[in-house]
Amino acid sequence: MRGRVACLTPPISNTRRTVPVVFEKNPLPAGAGRITVGNMREEVITMTHGSGGASSADLMKRVFSKHFDNEILGRLEDSAVVESEAGRLAISTDSFVVTPLVFPGGDIGKLAVCGTVNDVLMSGAAPRWLTCGFILETGLTIETLDSVCASLAASAAQAGVTVVAGDTKVIEGHGDGGGLIINTTGVGVFDAQGDGSFVSKDTKEPSPCAPGVPSGIRHDDAIIVSGNLGDHHAAILSARMGIRNNIQSDCAILTPIIKALREAGVDIHAMRDVTRGGLATVLGELATASGVSIEIEEENIPVSPEVKAFCGLMGLDPLYMGNEGKMALAVAPEDAKRALTAMRGTEIGRAAAIIGTASESGKNSVTMLTRIGGTVRLDALYGEGLPRIC
Amino acid sequence: MRGRVACLTPPISNTRRTVPVVFEKNPLPAGAGRITVGNMREEVITMTHGSGGASSADLMKRVFSKHFDNEILGRLEDSAVVESEAGRLAISTDSFVVTPLVFPGGDIGKLAVCGTVNDVLMSGAAPRWLTCGFILETGLTIETLDSVCASLAASAAQAGVTVVAGDTKVIEGHGDGGGLIINTTGVGVFDAQGDGSFVSKDTKEPSPCAPGVPSGIRHDDAIIVSGNLGDHHAAILSARMGIRNNIQSDCAILTPIIKALREAGVDIHAMRDVTRGGLATVLGELATASGVSIEIEEENIPVSPEVKAFCGLMGLDPLYMGNEGKMALAVAPEDAKRALTAMRGTEIGRAAAIIGTASESGKNSVTMLTRIGGTVRLDALYGEGLPRIC
Repeated sequence: MRGRVACLTPPISNTRRTVPVVFEKNPLPAGAGRITVGNMREEVITMTHGSGGASSADLMKRVFSKHFDNEILGRLEDSAVVESEAGRLAISTDSFVVTPLVFPGGDIGKLAVCGTVNDVLMSGAAPRWLTCGFILETGLTIETLDSVCASLAASAAQAGVTVVAGDTKVIEGHGDGGGLIINTTGVGVFDAQGDGSFVSKDTKEPSPCAPGVPSGIRHDDAIIVSGNLGDHHAAILSARMGIRNNIQSDCAILTPIIKALREAGVDIHAMRDVTRGGLATVLGELATASGVSIEIEEENIPVSPEVKAFCGLMGLDPLYMGNEGKMALAVAPEDAKRALTAMRGTEIGRAAAIIGTASESGKNSVTMLTRIGGTVRLDALYGEGLPRIC
Repeated sequence: MRGRVACLTPPISNTRRTVPVVFEKNPLPAGAGRITVGNMREEVITMTHGSGGASSADLMKRVFSKHFDNEILGRLEDSAVVESEAGRLAISTDSFVVTPLVFPGGDIGKLAVCGTVNDVLMSGAAPRWLTCGFILETGLTIETLDSVCASLAASAAQAGVTVVAGDTKVIEGHGDGGGLIINTTGVGVFDAQGDGSFVSKDTKEPSPCAPGVPSGIRHDDAIIVSGNLGDHHAAILSARMGIRNNIQSDCAILTPIIKALREAGVDIHAMRDVTRGGLATVLGELATASGVSIEIEEENIPVSPEVKAFCGLMGLDPLYMGNEGKMALAVAPEDAKRALTAMRGTEIGRAAAIIGTASESGKNSVTMLTRIGGTVRLDALYGEGLPRIC
């Protein structure tokens, strides 16, 4: 049985693009959370607006999309890619509100770098600069803030991005207080041709650029996922519920994988990081963008035994669970093994697996061949469920 | 008597740079709010850390500066200016937490554009792209959110920036809830020479670029301020205290003034927007950056009669009050009148005034000749005072 894990925020842009796709397919139910035109005065924001449920999509459509509609936002990519006299740039923003602030495998500082840097990476750009907006709640210990900042700085250094601007505000904490919200905005650069041959003047080393065209999946392409699914989601839920296990968040910067793929000369037809909404949602988006159908095989989906056990216990489905250091990509069948070897050669890609193939028959659908030989259609994430995990 | 208006956030960067300057001059008092090394576990964030007081500076020094120290942040400018294969870029970030969300003369949406766009403008860049991170508190009415977004979109259009990426999170509101925090990050471009001759390919019109070198003030330069001081601060305080008057926030994009100065061929030696900390603090920063002293004349400082009356009533000093649509600049004496005429020709610069001169005698000091002929030294803002206003 599939657990319905909530998509976790109402996105307004390409940085979180699952909701619009989801809810166009799933007609909005009437009732609570719905914004009624002409009656907006009485409607207020509730937690359901942040759950990724119907009211999130409604809020998106009725408020944000209405006011901020433009061609760049409309592309619903991981990063905005803009063209200017200064060359092509990738720009992505995300705010992080995870609880607890520190969790097995990472903390909000590391998460704030990985989330935004990976979005920039997925556009094919080399992430270069990061801004940080800190919202501190009263009651936050200086010790926690210090450790989060150390972690953020270390992750930024690892990602090769420089924190060039920042801002801090303090807000009143309620109850025990102690909360912390971090917004990061990342800016990345492309080479002049945008073909991945960018060479950094600073390092004289090839940058990890690759053409991240989400609409480039072709017939017979192999679909690859970079590692075990569900680790971040399971780690956060475990920490929050006081469940002791060995599950750690997969929170990681995807640069090493992109670099390895580039060095192996793999031609990536499409790629996306697999975050909120899980693999099923991301594959749905990729299939829609490329106008193909994707078929995956259940027995090839990598999930660690610990997470498998956790999911069994909790009634969750790893295909819909959030990750913070995973990506899915499509490559030509003749490139598949080379890509897999390259990915497995990195520490974060050791459990990479070829999970399926794309096909031009059918359209925009994702199906899964189950272990017992059946075929199920994987719809994108919908509904509300567990609290926010990233 | 001078009111001590709190600087309002602990900045970590060039986007809000008043605090470090202030508190290096004013040794930190021991006691509450101070972070004791080795005792961080017991210390927690309090509202004083956001007040711009001693503990803000302490937090900055002990936590943020420690982890995020780099050459670009160390410049303490309005925007980070970075060099890359993609050309020079200006990047600035700011989070906005104003209460009330809607105030006379603007709202948090307009403020979130003006604050960040003006910071990018002051670096001499042409603002081009904006990202928005919305943190919605439960209880916020959809009507308010809708109107804030409309205002943000209109201000972005006016500023010529495109909202290219965004993100939304919902957090639990306490009490009545209904809060809203907006982070905006702005990215601007320079022409290849960085000399202000940038021409936008889109519009085929000169961009409002100008060389914003804060350390370029020379002997005998005229110091000009673009209009009446204290309007934003007085408007917010009035709204918060339920005082009815005609004071409106000056919240505005400074592009028209920069454009007018450029068109008039004025060579700007230094410029900064006058925001939190007020004119006295900004002039102190400019004097320090250029290694000059600045003398201003009290009778030339533009303040509206309404704000003057409000300040008299409240014991506030307009020189230390926050603004959101004002700038100070230095030009050669022979350019002063031309600059003034150009500025006064814009709607937001009608009350511009030449307020003083720079001198190489003395160093890093700002003094004011009072109406009755005395001379007072204007120190930068210090201490804690009124609640956050932007």
